Amino acid sequence: MLDYRLLEALAAVIETGGFEKAAQKLHLTQSAVSQRLQQLERRLGQPVVLRSSPPVATPLGRRLNNHLQQVKQLELGLIEEAQDEPLKVRLTVNADSMATWLAEGLAASSLSSQMDFDLVVEDQEVGLNRMRNGEVMACICADSQAVNGGAVSPLGVLRYRALASPDFVERHQTRQYPHQLVEAPCLIFNQDDRLQHRFLEKLKLPAPKRQHRCPSSEGFVQMALMGLGYGMLPEIQVQDALKEGKLIDVAETFHLDIPLYWHYWQTESAALAELRRAVIEHASKVLNPVHPYSNKPDARS
Amino acid sequence: MLDYRLLEALAAVIETGGFEKAAQKLHLTQSAVSQRLQQLERRLGQPVVLRSSPPVATPLGRRLNNHLQQVKQLELGLIEEAQDEPLKVRLTVNADSMATWLAEGLAASSLSSQMDFDLVVEDQEVGLNRMRNGEVMACICADSQAVNGGAVSPLGVLRYRALASPDFVERHQTRQYPHQLVEAPCLIFNQDDRLQHRFLEKLKLPAPKRQHRCPSSEGFVQMALMGLGYGMLPEIQVQDALKEGKLIDVAETFHLDIPLYWHYWQTESAALAELRRAVIEHASKVLNPVHPYSNKPDARS
Repeated sequence: MLDYRLLEALAAVIETGGFEKAAQKLHLTQSAVSQRLQQLERRLGQPVVLRSSPPVATPLGRRLNNHLQQVKQLELGLIEEAQDEPLKVRLTVNADSMATWLAEGLAASSLSSQMDFDLVVEDQEVGLNRMRNGEVMACICADSQAVNGGAVSPLGVLRYRALASPDFVERHQTRQYPHQLVEAPCLIFNQDDRLQHRFLEKLKLPAPKRQHRCPSSEGFVQMALMGLGYGMLPEIQVQDALKEGKLIDVAETFHLDIPLYWHYWQTESAALAELRRAVIEHASKVLNPVHPYSNKPDARS
Repeated sequence: MLDYRLLEALAAVIETGGFEKAAQKLHLTQSAVSQRLQQLERRLGQPVVLRSSPPVATPLGRRLNNHLQQVKQLELGLIEEAQDEPLKVRLTVNADSMATWLAEGLAASSLSSQMDFDLVVEDQEVGLNRMRNGEVMACICADSQAVNGGAVSPLGVLRYRALASPDFVERHQTRQYPHQLVEAPCLIFNQDDRLQHRFLEKLKLPAPKRQHRCPSSEGFVQMALMGLGYGMLPEIQVQDALKEGKLIDVAETFHLDIPLYWHYWQTESAALAELRRAVIEHASKVLNPVHPYSNKPDARS
C-alpha cells in the first residue's frame, strides 16, 4: 500500500507552490518535506515533482495527487459521521459565478454552516486542471467533460450581453454603425477571454483594435458603467443597471449563453452530495435553462 | 549602448511567463527569442533569466527590465506628442480598489479615452514587485515606500468595517459575546489577508478558528450578505447594504483604515502625470482622508 504521509507531502508542495510553504502547512521542517518526496520517488523510481520555482508536478505526481483526492473523498464519508469538526470544502469556480450567484447557492445547503469553504477563483482551463490534479473537491466551469474519476452535473447557463453606458454608445454611434465596435475600446477580462470576439464574429466584424484588460468581475462592470469601454456582461450581475438604463445593448440585442457544470468525484461523500444538490437547485432558479442544443464551452474565467 | 531589442525579448519573457508566449507577443519564433536572451547574456557575462517553468528573472534581469520601463516612460513623452495611437497604460491595483472606486477615477481623466488600460489585480506585495521589476507603469497599493527610480503620491484611505448579516450576528450572538467571533466562520480574502486578525486582536481575541477563503471582492460581499461568515469589508463597497440593514457591525463599531498610494516612475510622461492627477483628485472625494498619524500598511490584496 502507498504511504499516504508521503502523498500528503506531495499534495502540500503542489497546492502551496513551494517546499517552505508546504512545510508550514504540514508543521514539518522543509527538509522533512524534501525527504518525504525523495522517499516517494525512490519507491516509485520516477520523479513526482520538478524542482523548479514554483515546483511543478510530473504526470506521475499529478496522478498520485488525483488519487489522494479520491481517497480523501472516501474518507470524508466515514469521518462526517464520526466527528463534528467543520468540513473543509475546496472548490474552483469561475470569477463571474463567484461574483454573482454562487454564495447564495452555497448558503442554500442545510450543511453549509458546518463547512469551511476554500474557494479558488480560476480561469476554467486552470480550474479543471486543478480538479484533474486532485487539488480540489469540486469545480464549477463551462466544460462538460468529466475528468478521470469524476462526474458532472449541469447547473444552467450564464447569459452574457454586449453592454455599455448610454454615453459610450452615443459617442461611438455603435447602434447606427456597428462596425465602429472594432475601433471603440473593448473590455476584456484577460487574454483568454474570447466572449467579446465571439460577439463581434456574430456581427461579421474582425477582432477589436482597442482593449482595456480588467481581470476583476466587479471592476469590469465599473469600467462599463463609467463609459470606458463595452463588453460582455452577465445579465444577472447588472439587472439593476439595465433597469435604470445605466447600461444598454451596444448594438442589436444579442446574447451569449455560457453553460456551467459542477464537476465532482465519483467517490463524493454524502455531505458534498447534499451541497451539490442545493447548489444545483439554486442554480436552476437563477441561471437560464440549458439550451436543447448544446453551446460550445467558452472561456471567460 | 544596450541593444533594446534584446531587452524587449527579456521583458516579454518575464511578462508573459514563457518563451512561447513571448515569441507570440513579439511576432518572433521561439528560437529567435531564445537567441536574443543568449546574446544578451553573452554580452553581460551573466544569466538574465533562469530557464525554469515559468522562467524567472535573475536580479540582473530584473534590473534590466526596470531600466527598460524607465526608458519606455521617457519615450512615451516623446511619442505622445508625435502620434495619436492609444497609449497602453499597464498598472497593478489591489482587488478592492478595482471593485470599488478606481474605474471612476480612470474615467475622470480627460485623456482616458485615448488610453488602453491593462489592469493587473494583485496582492500588494506582488503588485509592488511588478513595479520594482519594471513590468508596469504604475501601482496602487498600501505600501508608502517608493521603489528604486519611482515616486509615490498618497490617494487616501479605504475604510474597512467588520460586518455580517443580521441573522449571522443573531445566530452567533457576537454582539453580546464578542469572543464568539473566534468560533464563528470568518471570511478571509486569501492567506495573506490579515485584516480580520487585526480586528480580533483589537478585541483582544485570538485568531479565528473557522475560515471561508474567497479571493473575489464581490464574492466576499455576497458571502457576508448570505450569512456564511463575517469579515472586514470596504465601507464604500457596501453603502447600500449598510443603509438597508442587510449588513451590520458584528461587534462594537470598529474600523480599520488602509492607506493607498499611487506608485509611478520619476520619468513619468505628461499623459501619465495627467492620469495620476485625475485619479488622485477622484480618490480625494471618495476615499477617507489620510490620518495625521500614519497607519501601518497592511495587506488585503
